[in-house]
Amino acid sequence: MTQTVQKPFKRILLTGAAGGLGKVLRDRVKPWAEVVRLSDVAGMGEARAGEEIVKCDLADKAAVLALMEGVDVVLHFGGISTEAPFEAIMQANILGVANLYEAVNKAGVKRVVFASSNHAIGYYRTTDTVDASMPTRPDSMYGISKCFGESMSRYYYDRFGIETVCIRIGSSFPEPINKRMMTTYFSYDDLVEMLRCSLFAPRVGHTIIMGQSDNASTWWDNRYASHLGYKAKDSSAKFAHLFPDSAGYPERDDVTTIYQGGKFLLDGPQYR
Amino acid sequence: MTQTVQKPFKRILLTGAAGGLGKVLRDRVKPWAEVVRLSDVAGMGEARAGEEIVKCDLADKAAVLALMEGVDVVLHFGGISTEAPFEAIMQANILGVANLYEAVNKAGVKRVVFASSNHAIGYYRTTDTVDASMPTRPDSMYGISKCFGESMSRYYYDRFGIETVCIRIGSSFPEPINKRMMTTYFSYDDLVEMLRCSLFAPRVGHTIIMGQSDNASTWWDNRYASHLGYKAKDSSAKFAHLFPDSAGYPERDDVTTIYQGGKFLLDGPQYR
Amino acid sequence: MTQTVQKPFKRILLTGAAGGLGKVLRDRVKPWAEVVRLSDVAGMGEARAGEEIVKCDLADKAAVLALMEGVDVVLHFGGISTEAPFEAIMQANILGVANLYEAVNKAGVKRVVFASSNHAIGYYRTTDTVDASMPTRPDSMYGISKCFGESMSRYYYDRFGIETVCIRIGSSFPEPINKRMMTTYFSYDDLVEMLRCSLFAPRVGHTIIMGQSDNASTWWDNRYASHLGYKAKDSSAKFAHLFPDSAGYPERDDVTTIYQGGKFLLDGPQYR
Amino acid sequence: MTQTVQKPFKRILLTGAAGGLGKVLRDRVKPWAEVVRLSDVAGMGEARAGEEIVKCDLADKAAVLALMEGVDVVLHFGGISTEAPFEAIMQANILGVANLYEAVNKAGVKRVVFASSNHAIGYYRTTDTVDASMPTRPDSMYGISKCFGESMSRYYYDRFGIETVCIRIGSSFPEPINKRMMTTYFSYDDLVEMLRCSLFAPRVGHTIIMGQSDNASTWWDNRYASHLGYKAKDSSAKFAHLFPDSAGYPERDDVTTIYQGGKFLLDGPQYR
Amino acid sequence: MTQTVQKPFKRILLTGAAGGLGKVLRDRVKPWAEVVRLSDVAGMGEARAGEEIVKCDLADKAAVLALMEGVDVVLHFGGISTEAPFEAIMQANILGVANLYEAVNKAGVKRVVFASSNHAIGYYRTTDTVDASMPTRPDSMYGISKCFGESMSRYYYDRFGIETVCIRIGSSFPEPINKRMMTTYFSYDDLVEMLRCSLFAPRVGHTIIMGQSDNASTWWDNRYASHLGYKAKDSSAKFAHLFPDSAGYPERDDVTTIYQGGKFLLDGPQYR
Amino acid sequence: MTQTVQKPFKRILLTGAAGGLGKVLRDRVKPWAEVVRLSDVAGMGEARAGEEIVKCDLADKAAVLALMEGVDVVLHFGGISTEAPFEAIMQANILGVANLYEAVNKAGVKRVVFASSNHAIGYYRTTDTVDASMPTRPDSMYGISKCFGESMSRYYYDRFGIETVCIRIGSSFPEPINKRMMTTYFSYDDLVEMLRCSLFAPRVGHTIIMGQSDNASTWWDNRYASHLGYKAKDSSAKFAHLFPDSAGYPERDDVTTIYQGGKFLLDGPQYR
Repeated sequence: MTQTVQKPFKRILLTGAAGGLGKVLRDRVKPWAEVVRLSDVAGMGEARAGEEIVKCDLADKAAVLALMEGVDVVLHFGGISTEAPFEAIMQANILGVANLYEAVNKAGVKRVVFASSNHAIGYYRTTDTVDASMPTRPDSMYGISKCFGESMSRYYYDRFGIETVCIRIGSSFPEPINKRMMTTYFSYDDLVEMLRCSLFAPRVGHTIIMGQSDNASTWWDNRYASHLGYKAKDSSAKFAHLFPDSAGYPERDDVTTIYQGGKFLLDGPQYR
Repeated sequence: MTQTVQKPFKRILLTGAAGGLGKVLRDRVKPWAEVVRLSDVAGMGEARAGEEIVKCDLADKAAVLALMEGVDVVLHFGGISTEAPFEAIMQANILGVANLYEAVNKAGVKRVVFASSNHAIGYYRTTDTVDASMPTRPDSMYGISKCFGESMSRYYYDRFGIETVCIRIGSSFPEPINKRMMTTYFSYDDLVEMLRCSLFAPRVGHTIIMGQSDNASTWWDNRYASHLGYKAKDSSAKFAHLFPDSAGYPERDDVTTIYQGGKFLLDGPQYR
Repeated sequence: MTQTVQKPFKRILLTGAAGGLGKVLRDRVKPWAEVVRLSDVAGMGEARAGEEIVKCDLADKAAVLALMEGVDVVLHFGGISTEAPFEAIMQANILGVANLYEAVNKAGVKRVVFASSNHAIGYYRTTDTVDASMPTRPDSMYGISKCFGESMSRYYYDRFGIETVCIRIGSSFPEPINKRMMTTYFSYDDLVEMLRCSLFAPRVGHTIIMGQSDNASTWWDNRYASHLGYKAKDSSAKFAHLFPDSAGYPERDDVTTIYQGGKFLLDGPQYR
Repeated sequence: MTQTVQKPFKRILLTGAAGGLGKVLRDRVKPWAEVVRLSDVAGMGEARAGEEIVKCDLADKAAVLALMEGVDVVLHFGGISTEAPFEAIMQANILGVANLYEAVNKAGVKRVVFASSNHAIGYYRTTDTVDASMPTRPDSMYGISKCFGESMSRYYYDRFGIETVCIRIGSSFPEPINKRMMTTYFSYDDLVEMLRCSLFAPRVGHTIIMGQSDNASTWWDNRYASHLGYKAKDSSAKFAHLFPDSAGYPERDDVTTIYQGGKFLLDGPQYR
Repeated sequence: MTQTVQKPFKRILLTGAAGGLGKVLRDRVKPWAEVVRLSDVAGMGEARAGEEIVKCDLADKAAVLALMEGVDVVLHFGGISTEAPFEAIMQANILGVANLYEAVNKAGVKRVVFASSNHAIGYYRTTDTVDASMPTRPDSMYGISKCFGESMSRYYYDRFGIETVCIRIGSSFPEPINKRMMTTYFSYDDLVEMLRCSLFAPRVGHTIIMGQSDNASTWWDNRYASHLGYKAKDSSAKFAHLFPDSAGYPERDDVTTIYQGGKFLLDGPQYR
Repeated sequence: MTQTVQKPFKRILLTGAAGGLGKVLRDRVKPWAEVVRLSDVAGMGEARAGEEIVKCDLADKAAVLALMEGVDVVLHFGGISTEAPFEAIMQANILGVANLYEAVNKAGVKRVVFASSNHAIGYYRTTDTVDASMPTRPDSMYGISKCFGESMSRYYYDRFGIETVCIRIGSSFPEPINKRMMTTYFSYDDLVEMLRCSLFAPRVGHTIIMGQSDNASTWWDNRYASHLGYKAKDSSAKFAHLFPDSAGYPERDDVTTIYQGGKFLLDGPQYR
């Protein structure tokens, strides 16, 4: 007779399940809930064991309200995850977030993990050390939408006590693909560990944490999130051979290295 | 033979000209520009001497682009100025601001004064002292939209050097109409003086300033805006007789006095 | 027919009514309450109109509980107000304050103004600028007892919501009697005004404010008490003629001028 | 022929030797002194080799003066270590500490390690990060008495140069017995190491340090005590299996998880 | 029979007496000392009543040692006061200051007022608010030499207790001669008052204060110098008519308005 | 056939190559450049493979200009590295640094690593925690000259974008030779690693970093240099046996243990 280990949550909602990180997380979140409800505007294939598939446009309030039924906690990875025209950003990342929190409130969801981004602070310099007490400095329409999400979640905590952990994700890829990512690298395993901490810490209030592995170089100090208990296990150091020491300094006016946001500094609106 | 004194600007755009403060400002900004272009979704009556009247919905990008033609500087008082459903706020205050800055950038406008609000920080306590280095704490959908405007203007300054002064307006009324306003009072004359400072300081970068008179009690410290040169001339002290000393302390759980935002704490979304 | 102006409070308790400042305040607090209950261990003479006289040792818990019956708010000026052996300080200022707050809690008193002292921070240097966010640095057994009172009142606010304003009184005398007091002077009128602000501000939470007039020189920054609305009307400047400019610098090791506490630095326990 | 290794101190006084931590330390401090003088109000059994047993009520000044004869350094673990009525706390923890420092001063003792407590800051939130520069926020009569001890020791350092390390002890138990202790765990070995650092660092001035192991989650930042050289060797991580991930979030108004002090938030005085 | 009012000091040394501010101060410091010793490398004309004239090159150590004989306090306005080649700056402002403090130490002079400059912090932005706790950001060889003087005087205070007030002089001219000076204006009367405060405050330690009048616009916060008791009596506001409101914003890359140092940003070494 | 690995730089200049650390670095920097140009006033022996030897007095501007020809980056370890009379310090460390940066600018050198010193902050207490945002507190003429170098390099960065990393070197010796060095120890390997990080980080701007290994005890917090990616591999812990725990506390007025600078506190100018 097999013993069934009880999973902590009955139902986790993972939005953006068809996106880059959504795919990574799809299997990894399973140990935490009896059912993982997966949501996206794009196709997510067939539901596997322990999954529910709900295609949903976050800009559609009624759909989002329905999506939230029976959900305990939300991992909000939905929306646009790169620079785009404002109107598109607004539908997915602004109206989407507003709808999400309205639904969260109505459905009695207790906690949200919000995939914010380092682009909410991308206009700090690469020689600055940023912590969660400092004002945002978005580097793009995308970054502005992440600031918006942080504001909205702050409001829902102050007003209704709904807790959110905002993870300002660095570069969550299999490995760094440029030198900047040696600093911003956030391994999948560390991302999953940060999600675990965010879901299971007894109290998180409204916490902002930078999503990063234990890289040698960092721009971000997580001192105000120490209650989460997150300890990175990975480091970009193991990829050091990919970027050997080089004297090829960037040009003095190369904004992609002056500011933390990297290439986002060149995207989006152009001067006049 | 009369001498014509040259006015500093050729054309100022005043958005929200049909609103409460818009009406107050309509005449008062005239000394600063040959032409004051007035804009609103509501009717503004006939154009008077030195005025241009342009009815314009800020959510209509093409209209906003047209509105900005030939404009030197903008006083952005348009949009919704009280708590409202998010969808309405989004059109007027979020899409509206995005359109405005896109137009500002395209038209080569040099500086914007943005009517932000104390409701961007309304969830600080009435015993807190807030300055511009501290994170926002919006108290409403309206407050969140003002945080958004501050983010958007910060971006346009970091990216393109377009300067903005964000005035977090307190209570700009003829006189305080409740005890809270003894602290938040911002006389019309002081508002006009702050606009003058904001328009004529040689450099403002991206400045956040709390809009208040020199009241005895204050929650807001403008130390980071001292370069603007604003000195309040009024004080709520002259209205002290309206609110005599009283032992009628608010209830311990009265959020409208625990937090700075006052009655906004009761408006907007409700719990479940 | 005379009209009776309603006074804000029904009953104020003034402890330490026979002390130096107690005598000053005895008449001045009358406009704020129908009845002023005066308390001290020393004699206070006859009760005048609108007064109740209650001789009470603050170290006697039962007496303090009785003293608090029917009281709206407390001005706590009782206890020892100068350096003394610890045992005496403990009875009057430590047990006394503990009894006071226990009684305040039991009687449902809503607010206390606690006469703390600059000697709670007397070991800061006379070249330091101290504000309420900085740790205490007591200069005497007396100063330590004032730190204790601030801790106790903080606790009662955090635990029960009972509000206290801790006034770290500088030098409240008719006029400065030494050069140090040109910096620490706190006129009687300004003291009364600070009490008024402390009693009638809608919310005070747990506020620490330095009790000082608008002197030219100051060691204390009241930025975190700006919500109280206190504006000093006096300044020690009018006594400048008493202390003409002098080249008589203090000795390098004169602790009474190195540290803010002045002569308290020489009182109390001695080395071995 | 055996060589006798010289021990650093001639005599260490350990107060509270019959208490929970006192018993733990009794043997462990032996390597540091020729003689360990043990003191308590309760029985401590027979003196073993290298021990002196002195029964002593800390509220008895004459006894404490006698107790201090010939002592080099003090580990002050005496007094009440849990919430209790104020009068009892006052005798043991307030008068006791005052007597202790008077005796320390008279006996020429050079350094004290004072067992302060996390309950001196127990009213910070479990999402706050606290360091030694921040004001105390006691959560109990007990916590207030620890604030008092910190004030008293600060005074003796400022006045006489007597050095103290105040250790705000977290939860020093064999293992965490509730989830809160996963954050506040302070292993016996780490406690002993912190005592060692406190005793043997060349200069400690007046240092405040949070007593904690290297737990994953922490509320306390010891950046201002980095000169002590303390490095935790243990972590509560090894007990993680005792508290598996759980979705059982505490109630929104559960003060024992909102504030750092835990169950102390429910002890002590009650409302009215 | 005339009564002679005793002057506070026996002898003040004013270096740089032939310079712009030296000439202004020559008569104004007389009330403070029986004798004013005037020093410069340039001619100072005939000694008047109460004056001693000593021509002295500050780079000549023996001469500076002799100059200091019998001096109570020093007003150090000597050296080069504008941008110049480093070698010249080094002789006058670096070796000169080193010689001065060596002499001050040997002669037992008790206090120095050092004419530092806003150019020690000229690379802060014109939208920054600078106080004395922030690192220096010199804008020129001249500014670097002023940082050096601040370091040297800090050392002599820490090492020997010799007190110095470093006045970072703004623009001390009869009236503002460009718009920048509306912010940096420091009237002669206010300069003299600041000197008076610096000389006669009982303790100054090592104080850094920005030399400015009470102008509407300011970049500098003197909160850490509040113990000096300086209150400006003048303001640039009376010269507002000289710089009427203008829309002529500076170019975006005009460093003289981006940074506080103004035209110094264009002087000194050039790129390659 | 052997493959030649390309080295990152064509030519590194190492000044002070005959000094204590210069000798240590001579071989260790070779992997970073095709040619290492070695410079000193003292003899450096024969040039080995990949070396150029240039005897050069840094106070000789023409010589320094010539020295810089063809150099990519500079490791500036030249000058006097201990307390000395000011005139000598001035030639080597002040004029020397001024000449160096003038040459760096003229030669188009892109980055400098400047060997600053903990003696730039030696007058902080051994119980203080110092980071790069705090004002300097030099403990000697030598320390003042290091502050000067930091000012000069800051200027060249603000003015011309020439990047510098200022390493405030602790005690870089084979092993600690006194107890103080248990805190300040900076192993040769860690020094080399810090140089490597300083040379190869994409952007360093003007970074100040404390040069220390991962010692248990530290006075210095490198939080503002986290972008460099430096991780110490050594610790003084392995030398703990050299300094066994001891009760021999320093005297209360022993400045060499009160302040961080150690014995430098006794060198240099003497009182009168």
